Amino acid sequence: MAAYALGLGIGTHNSKGEWLEVFYPHPRMHPPAALAEVFEGRGPDTLTDSETEELATACVEAGDVQLADFAIRAAAADRPLVAIGLSEDRAPDSVPAAYLKLHMLSHRLVKPHETDLSGIFSILPNVAWTSEGAVAIDELPARQHDARLRGEVLEVSCVDKFPKMSNYVVPPGVRIAHTARVRLGAYVGEGTTVMHEGFINFNAGSEGPAMIEGRISAGVFMGSDSDLGGGSSTMGTLSGGGNIIISVGKNCLIGANAGLGIPLGDRCTIESGLYITAGTKVVMLDANGETVETRAARSLQGMSDLLFRRNSLSGAVECLTNKTAVELNAELHAHN
Amino acid sequence: MAAYALGLGIGTHNSKGEWLEVFYPHPRMHPPAALAEVFEGRGPDTLTDSETEELATACVEAGDVQLADFAIRAAAADRPLVAIGLSEDRAPDSVPAAYLKLHMLSHRLVKPHETDLSGIFSILPNVAWTSEGAVAIDELPARQHDARLRGEVLEVSCVDKFPKMSNYVVPPGVRIAHTARVRLGAYVGEGTTVMHEGFINFNAGSEGPAMIEGRISAGVFMGSDSDLGGGSSTMGTLSGGGNIIISVGKNCLIGANAGLGIPLGDRCTIESGLYITAGTKVVMLDANGETVETRAARSLQGMSDLLFRRNSLSGAVECLTNKTAVELNAELHAHN
Amino acid sequence: MAAYALGLGIGTHNSKGEWLEVFYPHPRMHPPAALAEVFEGRGPDTLTDSETEELATACVEAGDVQLADFAIRAAAADRPLVAIGLSEDRAPDSVPAAYLKLHMLSHRLVKPHETDLSGIFSILPNVAWTSEGAVAIDELPARQHDARLRGEVLEVSCVDKFPKMSNYVVPPGVRIAHTARVRLGAYVGEGTTVMHEGFINFNAGSEGPAMIEGRISAGVFMGSDSDLGGGSSTMGTLSGGGNIIISVGKNCLIGANAGLGIPLGDRCTIESGLYITAGTKVVMLDANGETVETRAARSLQGMSDLLFRRNSLSGAVECLTNKTAVELNAELHAHN
Repeated sequence: MAAYALGLGIGTHNSKGEWLEVFYPHPRMHPPAALAEVFEGRGPDTLTDSETEELATACVEAGDVQLADFAIRAAAADRPLVAIGLSEDRAPDSVPAAYLKLHMLSHRLVKPHETDLSGIFSILPNVAWTSEGAVAIDELPARQHDARLRGEVLEVSCVDKFPKMSNYVVPPGVRIAHTARVRLGAYVGEGTTVMHEGFINFNAGSEGPAMIEGRISAGVFMGSDSDLGGGSSTMGTLSGGGNIIISVGKNCLIGANAGLGIPLGDRCTIESGLYITAGTKVVMLDANGETVETRAARSLQGMSDLLFRRNSLSGAVECLTNKTAVELNAELHAHN
Repeated sequence: MAAYALGLGIGTHNSKGEWLEVFYPHPRMHPPAALAEVFEGRGPDTLTDSETEELATACVEAGDVQLADFAIRAAAADRPLVAIGLSEDRAPDSVPAAYLKLHMLSHRLVKPHETDLSGIFSILPNVAWTSEGAVAIDELPARQHDARLRGEVLEVSCVDKFPKMSNYVVPPGVRIAHTARVRLGAYVGEGTTVMHEGFINFNAGSEGPAMIEGRISAGVFMGSDSDLGGGSSTMGTLSGGGNIIISVGKNCLIGANAGLGIPLGDRCTIESGLYITAGTKVVMLDANGETVETRAARSLQGMSDLLFRRNSLSGAVECLTNKTAVELNAELHAHN
Repeated sequence: MAAYALGLGIGTHNSKGEWLEVFYPHPRMHPPAALAEVFEGRGPDTLTDSETEELATACVEAGDVQLADFAIRAAAADRPLVAIGLSEDRAPDSVPAAYLKLHMLSHRLVKPHETDLSGIFSILPNVAWTSEGAVAIDELPARQHDARLRGEVLEVSCVDKFPKMSNYVVPPGVRIAHTARVRLGAYVGEGTTVMHEGFINFNAGSEGPAMIEGRISAGVFMGSDSDLGGGSSTMGTLSGGGNIIISVGKNCLIGANAGLGIPLGDRCTIESGLYITAGTKVVMLDANGETVETRAARSLQGMSDLLFRRNSLSGAVECLTNKTAVELNAELHAHN
């Protein structure tokens, strides 16, 4: 019995019994056959008490200690539970399936673009994320009134289809100074620090150690040992980036308040305050500072060892490389 | 009995019995005469129990079901209540009056600049917004010590004259990814998404569908179907914008990390990373890319169909239009 | 008995009894001898009940009413307590010592760079800051599962070595619209407003009245009556600023989305959207708008009365001054 992924989740219903969100403490990818069999064909219905007890027993028998432990405790709690098994990687067709996939990304079981998230915006409901948990939007006013009449305030921290990641999982080896800015579905690589001005959308993130003080848009993935400066921007495919999927290689430095509209290779630098879009015309300089040619930034996508700056006297956007003029010319022409 | 607006609110006092804030679940503008009469001349004093009961009865008789329902429940709760009736639109002269006006904006009863908010900064007290509700600033340290001694932390999320909108109202049809960045008094039009980097001040907002990933300063209003890119800036009249009230028309696109210091008409674009201030000198290009003239951006305010970019080779700020040179010249001269 | 600083704190342990954080309601600098004697050589061990009672008595006898009052109440609470006395200003060698120093900054007992914080990153543990207080990172998953099984959500608002300041102290005379963006260890001068987009790192801040809508990086200190525009950036010594410590003088205006990589004197302006790094070549203009010379911004550090802009026609970064050409030339040459 092969399977793509599975999870046992505890979640929240609206007053009609529909799923608003699901928390999977132990999502599994490519599970062993015995476990896959337990979850085969399950989801997205809410488990009955007897189903939950059977499932807990089956998880114990399948030998997944973490999952079994959670299943046993979940069976004793009186909360909405769901078990879901995905036989293959398909577009999510339910809230529990969508949340399982978002968990897989944030648990680092898959990297951005490695799991099918097609149509996730239409699957996920807009939810009010509050100090009392997830609340259906149309039930929010009554909940707010009730809290006030009790002398309390219902803190509404987010009104969105995606919750913040840290209320679901904080992967090991990271710092996230302000968690409201990292969505569930972000992939935050080990050794990553996301400062207060940093942001990571779902299906996006950093592969390994990184300093993130800028915005990683949906779909953008950044290689190890790169630094996204304060307030810097990466264009998302959802907004302005068009069809090009932006990425940043290893050992790159995107300066503060800079911006990126093309994929970068390794060891690239964009000076602080400079926004490079695909259409930016760039003066290519060789290692001697001589102009080689002028080309659109679009044609430099994926190249390594580039440094972008705006000449502060002429106003021209320039691109330097640490290669010699000969090597650069060879590489430039190789990409033509 | 004509009236401008009214509300029945539940709020918070400091230890001297002064208002810190008021929550109005059902603010009313231009109420029917029967209801207006109930609220005539009321406010800002705290209602006594008997006054509250009389008011609840009167609201029932006046036939406003929502308000009556709230009044009945409020009468049963032991919380500070206030009823306020504003006969006309005047500068707010009390905390309850100021909060009623902020609610009117966020409930979309009035648009930015449509209600008189003169002097609101001097009316509103600075408040610590905490996990235990609004706390007077000078009472905060004692509350923090008490919480710690109980083994708890008093979460202080905001120290400001204006609270966040979402703890008062979330108007229908919006997403607000990070609610701390939208102040009460913001007008968030139906179909608006405010992303994590978006911000909306009071007396400002979006008329209809919009994607807001930049900052809408106090007083700035944006037309439908416009997009404020990540980290983009609109100058507020409170800070640097001078006397010009900045606005954005319909179908505009302000790029990521761009900025705006003049009002824009419809279908305008500012390229990512470019800041247009009133004093920016702009090279006007016609539809053939030929230079028409050079003028200050100030003189382009309110015009439609403009695209601003910085020429990445010459460093000059340029403005293109989709009109022909003849039309453009005609329009430019018409504005002289 | 001379002493540098002392504090009585209430804090949080991980499950091994190690300090995660400490809250000092009344940190003292250069305490009187009687009080210093009480705290001499103390810390960082957790106080026993009898030690706490003795300490409370001693604080009463030493005549520090605030501290005595807190000590008495703390002795009655069943929480982890620590007393610490620092005989001199040294690099912090324990979590309680590090937190005392961060409190001293935020209580305005010392200004940025006035207390030794060497090695603080290695002393402070990474902590999950939650709605249930500080939680050790490796204990977080179990706490999250438990909360969910109870039908609650453990709100994780920050995963970082530094907590937000406002949960420890809100110094008098400030507004902080979004407290998650001001770290404990920030120095927030009286009269400072930190707007939603503002940020202040530890060992950094504003001396007096200020409007902060941009980012004050670690180590950066800003003089009175200066304005940091929305989204503006100051380079930190930790990231990109190299060895130069960035500062901003009095009466400066850093425009929205602008950036600063050199220390500024008084009355300086950087236009919105312009990033000045140390290496930026700047065309110096005299009071008549004539070019004086071209020099690196690095060589202008600390000078007053400068206005930086990018010429929107030529693309060149220019620096104007309100001094005459003669004065300017004299000053420029004096700095050579």
